[in-house]
Amino acid sequence: MNHSEYLKGWSDRYRTDALENILPFWLEHGWDRVNGGVYTCVDREGRLMDSTKSVWFQGRCGFIYSFAYNNLDPRPEYLEFAKSCIDFIEAHCFDPADGRMYFEVTADGQPLRKRRYVFSECFAAIAMSEYSLASGDKTYAEKALRLFKDIQRFIATPGMLEPKYLPTQQAVGHSVTMILINTAARIREAIADPALNEQIDKSLEMIRTLFVHPEYKALLEMVTPDGKLIDTLNGRTINPGHCIETAWFLLEEAKYRNWEPELTKMALQILDWSWDWGWDEEFGGIINFRDCKGFPNQDYSQDMKFWWPQTEAVIATLYAYEASGDDKYLEMHKKASDWMYAHLPDPEFGEWFGYLHRDGTVAQPAKGNIFKGPFHIPRMLIKSPMIIGEILKK
Amino acid sequence: MNHSEYLKGWSDRYRTDALENILPFWLEHGWDRVNGGVYTCVDREGRLMDSTKSVWFQGRCGFIYSFAYNNLDPRPEYLEFAKSCIDFIEAHCFDPADGRMYFEVTADGQPLRKRRYVFSECFAAIAMSEYSLASGDKTYAEKALRLFKDIQRFIATPGMLEPKYLPTQQAVGHSVTMILINTAARIREAIADPALNEQIDKSLEMIRTLFVHPEYKALLEMVTPDGKLIDTLNGRTINPGHCIETAWFLLEEAKYRNWEPELTKMALQILDWSWDWGWDEEFGGIINFRDCKGFPNQDYSQDMKFWWPQTEAVIATLYAYEASGDDKYLEMHKKASDWMYAHLPDPEFGEWFGYLHRDGTVAQPAKGNIFKGPFHIPRMLIKSPMIIGEILKK
Repeated sequence: MNHSEYLKGWSDRYRTDALENILPFWLEHGWDRVNGGVYTCVDREGRLMDSTKSVWFQGRCGFIYSFAYNNLDPRPEYLEFAKSCIDFIEAHCFDPADGRMYFEVTADGQPLRKRRYVFSECFAAIAMSEYSLASGDKTYAEKALRLFKDIQRFIATPGMLEPKYLPTQQAVGHSVTMILINTAARIREAIADPALNEQIDKSLEMIRTLFVHPEYKALLEMVTPDGKLIDTLNGRTINPGHCIETAWFLLEEAKYRNWEPELTKMALQILDWSWDWGWDEEFGGIINFRDCKGFPNQDYSQDMKFWWPQTEAVIATLYAYEASGDDKYLEMHKKASDWMYAHLPDPEFGEWFGYLHRDGTVAQPAKGNIFKGPFHIPRMLIKSPMIIGEILKK
Repeated sequence: MNHSEYLKGWSDRYRTDALENILPFWLEHGWDRVNGGVYTCVDREGRLMDSTKSVWFQGRCGFIYSFAYNNLDPRPEYLEFAKSCIDFIEAHCFDPADGRMYFEVTADGQPLRKRRYVFSECFAAIAMSEYSLASGDKTYAEKALRLFKDIQRFIATPGMLEPKYLPTQQAVGHSVTMILINTAARIREAIADPALNEQIDKSLEMIRTLFVHPEYKALLEMVTPDGKLIDTLNGRTINPGHCIETAWFLLEEAKYRNWEPELTKMALQILDWSWDWGWDEEFGGIINFRDCKGFPNQDYSQDMKFWWPQTEAVIATLYAYEASGDDKYLEMHKKASDWMYAHLPDPEFGEWFGYLHRDGTVAQPAKGNIFKGPFHIPRMLIKSPMIIGEILKK
C-alpha cells in the first residue's frame, strides 16, 4: 500500500468507529434524560454503576458532541446532547460563592466535591465555544470567553486556588499551562479577543523556558518557578502520554501560525523525546510514567497502559507527519494505531477498555468512571480524519 | 510436622528476618544521621531517591524500633534510632499555628505538605508511648497521651479537619475509627487514662453499628453517619487488607478483655469475610480492592498485591488461631505466609518488595516511598512470634 491508501484506510476506520460505536454508546448509556447532562461511571455493558457526575465530563461531553456535529456529521441528537450537558453545567456546576466550578455533583446537580484546579472550567469553556459554532448562537462564545477570563483571574488571584504544597516548595505545573493553550485555541475559533493569543504566547513561553529540559530529553510535569528540576519522585516524573498530547497542541498552534519553524521544531522534539520515554519496546503501547533519572516511578499505575496516551499518540504522530512529511511519523502512527486497535476495543459490548496491564491485558473492564468517558477516544476519532484530510489535500 | 513445630518454625523465621534483614536495612539506608529522623524513599539497593520525609514514617519508625527493643532484642541502636525519629518529630513536624502535624517535610524539617487527616499524629503518639516503655522515661508517655487528646479535639472541633466532600455527602470513615483503637491500645500500655478506653469503646461501637454490613459480608470503608451504604464506587469499595488489619486490632482488644465473646466473634467474622473477598484463589495473595456489589473497582491498583495486606493477614490468622483454636486459621496462616515468602523478599539486595502485579511479579522494585518503610513488615515479624509464644504457652 502507498501512503495515501494507508491514510484513507485509517480515516475511514476512525470515522466509522466514532459514528457507529463510540458516539452511540454514550448517547445510549451516558445521557441522563431525566436531569440532563451525562453519566460516565458505567460498567462494561454500559450499566450505571455510580450516578456521581463528573463536572469535567459535562464539559468534555458538551465539547465532543458539538465537535462531532461540526466536523463529522451534523446529527440533531449530537447537538441536543451537547446542549443538555451545557444546560446542566449552567444550572448546577458553578459555586455561587466564588464563581469557581465543582469537581463532582450528584445526578440532580447537588455539589459533592470542589478541587483546587481549573480543569472543570476549561472543559466547560471549550464546550460552550464549540457549541456556539455548532448552533450558531454567539452568546455561548461570549460565555466561553467570560469563563476563560474568570479562569485567568482564579489563577492570578493569590488564595483562590489553594496550593498543594506549602510555601517551602514553590512549583509550577505543566498541566494547567498546556490546557490553557488548547482552551484558548478552541475558544478562538468561535470569538476573537486579545486575551486568547496572549495566553497562548505566555503558555508557549513557559513550556519553552520552564518545562522543556534537554538534559533529560524530557518535558517535565512540575518544576520550580524558575524552571529548575524538583529532584523528588514527583518532580522527576515523566508522563509520556501527557507530553505527547502537549506536542500536538503545539503542532496545532504551529499550523495556525503557518508552521512557524521554531514552534514546529520544539513540538516535534517533545514528541520524539516523549515517544522514546513512553513507547514500550517489549509489549508495545505508551506506558504511564517514567522517572527522568531512571529511578522506579512510585505511581501505582506506572507500568500500566491507559487508553488516552494511546489516542494522543495517534493524533500527535499524524500531526507530526503533516508538519514534517517525515515517514518515520507514519510508522509511529501505524505502531500506535495497531496496538490501540489490538487491545482497546471491546468486541462484545462496544466502546473501548481504558485500563490495561503493561502486557495489554485488561485490568478492569468498565467503560467509564469520573476520568474516562466520551473525550479522548472520540476526539481522536474525529480529529485524525481531519488531519488526514489536510495531508491528502497537499 | 505437628502444629507446634510449624509454629516454632514460623516464629524463628520471622525473628531472624527482623533481626538480620529488615531492621538492619533501615538502620543503614534510612537513618538520617545528619538531621535525625528517617528517610524512606530508597530504591531497590537502598539508595536515597528522594529526601522528602514522610511524617507518618517518623512516628512509625520511632514506634517500630522501640517495639523491637521491647519485644525482640534490646539493642542500644534501636533505641537511638527511635529517639532520633521522635526528636525530629518534636523539632519539625508540628504546625505551631494549630498544633496539627504535617504530612511531608524536607530532609531538614521544613514543612512541605499538610493534609486533612490525623494519621501523622496517631503514629507520633504510638512512637512516644512505645519509646516511653523502652527508655523508662515516663514523660514520653505523658506526651503521647496529650497528643492523643489533641487528636480527639481535632476530630471533634468543626472546621479543624476540612472534609473531602461537601455537606451534600456526609460520610464517616473506617480508617480513623480503627486507627484510634490501635493508638489508644498502644498508649494504654504506657500510661493510664479513662479517655483511652472510652475511645476504644466508642470506636468498637461504631465498627459494630456503622461499618459491619452482613448483607454484603463486608466491613465497609466509608458509610453515611447513620451507617448506610453510600452506593458509589468509593462507597462500595472493600479494602480486604485494611479489614484484616482491623480484625486483628479487634482480636487484640478482645484478648485484653479476656476474650470477650461478642468482640471475638465479630473480629473472626470480619476476618472470614475479608479473607473471602481478598484471597485470590487464582494467583494467591490478598488483592487490593473489591466492590461489594461486584462492579469493577476503579482504583488503578485494584488487582495489584501490595506488601501490607499480606503482612496483616499473617498476623490476623495467627491471632484468630490463638482466639479460636480452629485449625482453619493455621491453614490460612500457612497460605498467607508461604505466598508472602515466595514473592516479597528481595534475595539480592535485602528487604522486601512492596508492589506486585496480581500474578506476584514485581511491578517496581523500590524498597520504600512515603507509604512504604519500616512499619508493616517489621511489625508483623515482631508481633507474630509474640502471638506464637502465647499460643505455645497454652
